[in-house]
Amino acid sequence: MTVLKIRNKQQCRWDLVSLGEVMLRLDPGDSRIATTRQFRAWEGGGEYNVARGLKRCFRMDTAIVTALADNPVGRLIEDLMLQGGVDQSHVHWVDFDGVGRTVRNGLNFTEHGFGVRAALGCSDRGHTAVSQLQPGDIDWENIFAKEGARWFHTGGIFCALSESTPLVAREAMEAAKRSGTIVSYDLNYRPSLWKSIGGKAKAQEVNRTLAPLADVMLGNEEDFTAALGFEVGELDENHSQLNAASFRKMVGKVVQKFPNLPVVAITLPNAKTAPVNDWGALC
Amino acid sequence: MTVLKIRNKQQCRWDLVSLGEVMLRLDPGDSRIATTRQFRAWEGGGEYNVARGLKRCFRMDTAIVTALADNPVGRLIEDLMLQGGVDQSHVHWVDFDGVGRTVRNGLNFTEHGFGVRAALGCSDRGHTAVSQLQPGDIDWENIFAKEGARWFHTGGIFCALSESTPLVAREAMEAAKRSGTIVSYDLNYRPSLWKSIGGKAKAQEVNRTLAPLADVMLGNEEDFTAALGFEVGELDENHSQLNAASFRKMVGKVVQKFPNLPVVAITLPNAKTAPVNDWGALC
Amino acid sequence: MTVLKIRNKQQCRWDLVSLGEVMLRLDPGDSRIATTRQFRAWEGGGEYNVARGLKRCFRMDTAIVTALADNPVGRLIEDLMLQGGVDQSHVHWVDFDGVGRTVRNGLNFTEHGFGVRAALGCSDRGHTAVSQLQPGDIDWENIFAKEGARWFHTGGIFCALSESTPLVAREAMEAAKRSGTIVSYDLNYRPSLWKSIGGKAKAQEVNRTLAPLADVMLGNEEDFTAALGFEVGELDENHSQLNAASFRKMVGKVVQKFPNLPVVAITLPNAKTAPVNDWGALC
Amino acid sequence: MTVLKIRNKQQCRWDLVSLGEVMLRLDPGDSRIATTRQFRAWEGGGEYNVARGLKRCFRMDTAIVTALADNPVGRLIEDLMLQGGVDQSHVHWVDFDGVGRTVRNGLNFTEHGFGVRAALGCSDRGHTAVSQLQPGDIDWENIFAKEGARWFHTGGIFCALSESTPLVAREAMEAAKRSGTIVSYDLNYRPSLWKSIGGKAKAQEVNRTLAPLADVMLGNEEDFTAALGFEVGELDENHSQLNAASFRKMVGKVVQKFPNLPVVAITLPNAKTAPVNDWGALC
Amino acid sequence: MTVLKIRNKQQCRWDLVSLGEVMLRLDPGDSRIATTRQFRAWEGGGEYNVARGLKRCFRMDTAIVTALADNPVGRLIEDLMLQGGVDQSHVHWVDFDGVGRTVRNGLNFTEHGFGVRAALGCSDRGHTAVSQLQPGDIDWENIFAKEGARWFHTGGIFCALSESTPLVAREAMEAAKRSGTIVSYDLNYRPSLWKSIGGKAKAQEVNRTLAPLADVMLGNEEDFTAALGFEVGELDENHSQLNAASFRKMVGKVVQKFPNLPVVAITLPNAKTAPVNDWGALC
Amino acid sequence: MTVLKIRNKQQCRWDLVSLGEVMLRLDPGDSRIATTRQFRAWEGGGEYNVARGLKRCFRMDTAIVTALADNPVGRLIEDLMLQGGVDQSHVHWVDFDGVGRTVRNGLNFTEHGFGVRAALGCSDRGHTAVSQLQPGDIDWENIFAKEGARWFHTGGIFCALSESTPLVAREAMEAAKRSGTIVSYDLNYRPSLWKSIGGKAKAQEVNRTLAPLADVMLGNEEDFTAALGFEVGELDENHSQLNAASFRKMVGKVVQKFPNLPVVAITLPNAKTAPVNDWGALC
Repeated sequence: MTVLKIRNKQQCRWDLVSLGEVMLRLDPGDSRIATTRQFRAWEGGGEYNVARGLKRCFRMDTAIVTALADNPVGRLIEDLMLQGGVDQSHVHWVDFDGVGRTVRNGLNFTEHGFGVRAALGCSDRGHTAVSQLQPGDIDWENIFAKEGARWFHTGGIFCALSESTPLVAREAMEAAKRSGTIVSYDLNYRPSLWKSIGGKAKAQEVNRTLAPLADVMLGNEEDFTAALGFEVGELDENHSQLNAASFRKMVGKVVQKFPNLPVVAITLPNAKTAPVNDWGALC
Repeated sequence: MTVLKIRNKQQCRWDLVSLGEVMLRLDPGDSRIATTRQFRAWEGGGEYNVARGLKRCFRMDTAIVTALADNPVGRLIEDLMLQGGVDQSHVHWVDFDGVGRTVRNGLNFTEHGFGVRAALGCSDRGHTAVSQLQPGDIDWENIFAKEGARWFHTGGIFCALSESTPLVAREAMEAAKRSGTIVSYDLNYRPSLWKSIGGKAKAQEVNRTLAPLADVMLGNEEDFTAALGFEVGELDENHSQLNAASFRKMVGKVVQKFPNLPVVAITLPNAKTAPVNDWGALC
Repeated sequence: MTVLKIRNKQQCRWDLVSLGEVMLRLDPGDSRIATTRQFRAWEGGGEYNVARGLKRCFRMDTAIVTALADNPVGRLIEDLMLQGGVDQSHVHWVDFDGVGRTVRNGLNFTEHGFGVRAALGCSDRGHTAVSQLQPGDIDWENIFAKEGARWFHTGGIFCALSESTPLVAREAMEAAKRSGTIVSYDLNYRPSLWKSIGGKAKAQEVNRTLAPLADVMLGNEEDFTAALGFEVGELDENHSQLNAASFRKMVGKVVQKFPNLPVVAITLPNAKTAPVNDWGALC
Repeated sequence: MTVLKIRNKQQCRWDLVSLGEVMLRLDPGDSRIATTRQFRAWEGGGEYNVARGLKRCFRMDTAIVTALADNPVGRLIEDLMLQGGVDQSHVHWVDFDGVGRTVRNGLNFTEHGFGVRAALGCSDRGHTAVSQLQPGDIDWENIFAKEGARWFHTGGIFCALSESTPLVAREAMEAAKRSGTIVSYDLNYRPSLWKSIGGKAKAQEVNRTLAPLADVMLGNEEDFTAALGFEVGELDENHSQLNAASFRKMVGKVVQKFPNLPVVAITLPNAKTAPVNDWGALC
Repeated sequence: MTVLKIRNKQQCRWDLVSLGEVMLRLDPGDSRIATTRQFRAWEGGGEYNVARGLKRCFRMDTAIVTALADNPVGRLIEDLMLQGGVDQSHVHWVDFDGVGRTVRNGLNFTEHGFGVRAALGCSDRGHTAVSQLQPGDIDWENIFAKEGARWFHTGGIFCALSESTPLVAREAMEAAKRSGTIVSYDLNYRPSLWKSIGGKAKAQEVNRTLAPLADVMLGNEEDFTAALGFEVGELDENHSQLNAASFRKMVGKVVQKFPNLPVVAITLPNAKTAPVNDWGALC
Repeated sequence: MTVLKIRNKQQCRWDLVSLGEVMLRLDPGDSRIATTRQFRAWEGGGEYNVARGLKRCFRMDTAIVTALADNPVGRLIEDLMLQGGVDQSHVHWVDFDGVGRTVRNGLNFTEHGFGVRAALGCSDRGHTAVSQLQPGDIDWENIFAKEGARWFHTGGIFCALSESTPLVAREAMEAAKRSGTIVSYDLNYRPSLWKSIGGKAKAQEVNRTLAPLADVMLGNEEDFTAALGFEVGELDENHSQLNAASFRKMVGKVVQKFPNLPVVAITLPNAKTAPVNDWGALC
């Protein structure tokens, strides 16, 4: 059994560093987006939320690496992240063009579901500063070697933002490994993001390229199949009868393919709460 | 003296048809954009506001020609325009890509000024559906010849949205003229919009191409100089001493250049309220 | 089996025209009417809601025929109906007396129920403009023959507003039939409205007079019994054991009495959701 | 010079008892009535406000005599008056008819003015419980003789509500005088209220009938002229040059006509704040 | 069987007088205390709530005896109690020191629970005016003998506020008994309040001293055991199997110890709603 | 002329460290404290505000040294300070007693003034965690010598909280001087705070003891006279005619008394905006 060796807190300024987009979330409360007259403002993003949760629930020291356009919307995201307690010293600020043609900040309109009415989201995240992040923009050696980080987290949403973001993720993951930082990658497959840049095939290509650099791979069943190209056998229509054995088999294949992965965690799709299962014992 | 001949109400379904962008306006009330937790939602747009004002203040029948991406944000703009009372039967709806890379709806974050603190705006209107409007997308003959319109209004904000919007404006103005519809054009020079598509030179080129198709030309002093290329003489730093004679002289030049214009209206920059001056007597 | 022949969309400006009251609804949100300090404003009315729903859910062209007192409250109802998308070109506006003695707009204070606490309403709809509507006030020929309408809807709430409203309903239903417009009538029996103008006997008299002019009759069990005077046999205290056979028998009687009715729809009182049952096959 | 002899506090449960309508005031805050989606709720009424102000600013013991329909709106007015601290043991509650045809509670929609936009009100107070108050409904002997009151206040708004309210005012004023309670009457002329029940002539008749029963008469210039029938000489169009001498002359006539009045107070129409001038020295 | 003899309403100004603290309750609505930006204000207190409920639900005449520091927070509590309808003529107002070192008003921050998240409270009630109330501060003879009261209520929260509050409670209970006023005492054991002034032992001592002065003793199982020192036999871990016989036995002991108590009411800990059981028949 | 020698940014983690109380500010918006039903929550404190302003306006790295009781109110202050961007790694958290008798967090109720109505505050800051801070609680060597700070700020509000806070201030100022950190002290005389711990005499004693440890002394005229014991000559009643010469003379005396002070800044009481005057040239 492989055990994760995590660096000492004393050597590291950061318990965790996340790389990903942070969007302004606009939420109409009890109303619907299409008929509201009022929005509440929050910040959010798949990779960022991990850093925020660890900070505010467990008081860990976490930092976010992202990019923002320097306009009042970007500064509102900064203000929300300040409240979130996640360090922003590695946020990459980009000049705004005054219009939003060349660079923007991501927005996410979200609506609660009630009873038979499903929850509804409308993301507006094209042409964002973070999607234009390039290798070389961030001083990863400073973060991992000099300041020190115990854990680095990124994932498949960030890598679906553009052609360049997987290159930034690779650069970061390699730097993290050089400093002995644990690397986790959340597959988080979002078809709409991949659609115009190569679809499922591209998603699999990107994720398979990055998987050898991760220590921990996270995802639900769809993430492992659609976004990483593995298959779970004997699966009925609703995924409701996926049995542990099938999963165990798939995880076996994942570990065979990527022997670098001591931990593979699958959130079961029909579970009420999302248990994270440590499959490391299979290695 | 030239008199505007306006079509009879009986022949026309519309008192006025406007062509322009309608954005979702997000306003933090008494707070500031960069630190708020709450936004109020409104709709707005330079050309649209004319149609809305005539409807709600004077109960005229007005319509908007614009394009929107078909997502919950677009439907909220629809809901706000319904409340505004402006007819939407000629709104061009475009499929959304789920992300906002290929097409979006325009947003406008605006903040009130207080005392020494200036008002502040942050528009986020790149890649919008309306900026991608092409000649042929709208059935102008239906609007002007079949339904009938007494007045058509567009302007320099719409024409600064992209390479194709001036072509749509031209197509509309020509159709309007064929049906005897009065055409007004508000110069409304916005440097940030023109910056990345050719700047002031391009603005002047576009506006000078469209001016011969207008019956009424609107603008403030800066619009006529920067965006149409005329000059007002004897002008001090603050424009505060622009005298009527200088303006009269500039208007004379405008009318000489564009003899088609029976009405040229300049809003004086140092006026408390914005008087619209009918210079028609100069023709 | 009778089939409803609905006019072509091409010949008709309106998919549906409704006749009824539109009230300002004041709702204290999570609080109670009797202790709140804040109300949200909505518009509503039994017959109007049909027109609004068809417009906003199915994008049909619908219009409301009603009357309003011309004061800021009436104009707020107009603003809310604009947002609702229902055409108001046939709203009858009446001069306000400055006090509300001779004419008013209807108000409806409504409170949500929570747990054991029942929902609560307090309607304040005496002396309204719509209750004073008289035959001749509306140009029905223009609506049904000239503009064209595929469906006309009214009902027992409108007809309970005053002595004159059933006469207006009759006038409208007759004009609709002349133009081949389908006529639906929702019995919607409200004892409090009928109480001071003749009670249940008057309700039955009015509804029985109008029934021969309808193509579709809607109601729940109480509507057909109390407001139309039919009886369902073998009925226990709670109506919970009304069986289909009893209803079928009652509907048989309704159809025998009013052979003009190809469709009679009863919403079952003990159903969770309100299914509309097409009993036309019984004819 | 006449001096008002006010009863000792020790003998009196009430510092002041007011007779008048209390309405639910609905106020859209910074918005306008005709376009708001939200109202704040307050209570108010010309005569009541005197009792509320004396209670909350000066901690005096005051009571209101009024009538309310017993529905949730009436109970909200009760809740607001509880917060106002004015005793309600003499409020006359009337059964509600469920609809508002026979009896209602008064409503007052009010909107703030901003800059050039004037304040706006829309009262909806026809058919209210208080307008139907009859002599005999209130036990005035209990209030003035048994409980004891130092001051009684009513006025021309209450007396304009119906044919019966002046009779109730007379009954109250007579009982007050019998117990040595000071009686004040605020003319408060509201043309819209008087219009349908006899206009200015009726107002003058009612007020002139009640004036002999008052100790203190309040009003502005228009109240004394239009509602009581006196004239101020040498008056220009805008009332802006009414000089003290003219007023003094008019007050002289008032005192000549009603020698019972030791105090006549006129609020000057062009004053910024409303000074109350004690003209008693003229007697 | 002992029957409670309650004084006639005619002889008594008060149906009930309560003695206890009234705090300002600050509630973040749907948010959490630790991250909110907004609080709603209410008033509340264990003994006060009885007086408020009887007033607003059953329209009884009730009064509160408490003390408040005379600052804007105290005046807000006054305003909230006015709305609550509970008479405040016996509230003892104390000068504020401008800082809150010597005297304060009690605050109670409360947060709703949602799903797995428990409700949360944070009371801030040290050094309050009411905790400094001393025997002699209140004129109990005036309340019970002169004004008259049918019922007096106080309890174990008030008596845990300081060393002096049990003395005030004793003084009040004795005066009540002298006037034939029924006395009820709610044990309401709050360990955090007793902790620094002697803990459970002190609570038992205080409550056992006051019990002989009560006619009605209220509490749940924990109150009778921890705060009064009785024991219920055969009790499992979760109190879920406390049977009626055990309770009956304990009540028997209570009644044996305090033969003055005709009514002992225990709210059962595992009941959904809190039934109040009259055990008087056991006497 | 003395020049302040400020440490290099490179050697220092902090641009500024402040020592002082941070209170929860509760503000009723447009309402008044005594009648509101809603409060907005902010954080604030004289010394803290300097650190917050430098962070959010000038993006400097600042930290606050304070103490808070560990309850939901303290955690809300933490959340507000996170949004404020001021580092909290040196906040001293103290266990809460569940009641607020032994330790609390400071509260400040504040109300805006409107027109003739003055602004109003009600602070509730007795028995706070920060007032109980003792020498030795904070590791000043770590802050000034190890982490490094360019500027240290504290003042007369913090020193008025208790007997022990001036000792903590002294300890901090001495440590700061040892590391070459500039020390500023804002006199900020608040009579209500000093009243119960020795009044003006005690304030002067404390401030005069600490003055020799400061590099920069801040205050308005009243601060220098009442709280430091200097006098400005030729002063009229309203302080409106204090001339520069008188001030210059007083500053001369201050500098003579405390030759350690290279900078003394007085905010003029009748100035519209608060200019900070560098009097260093007088040294």
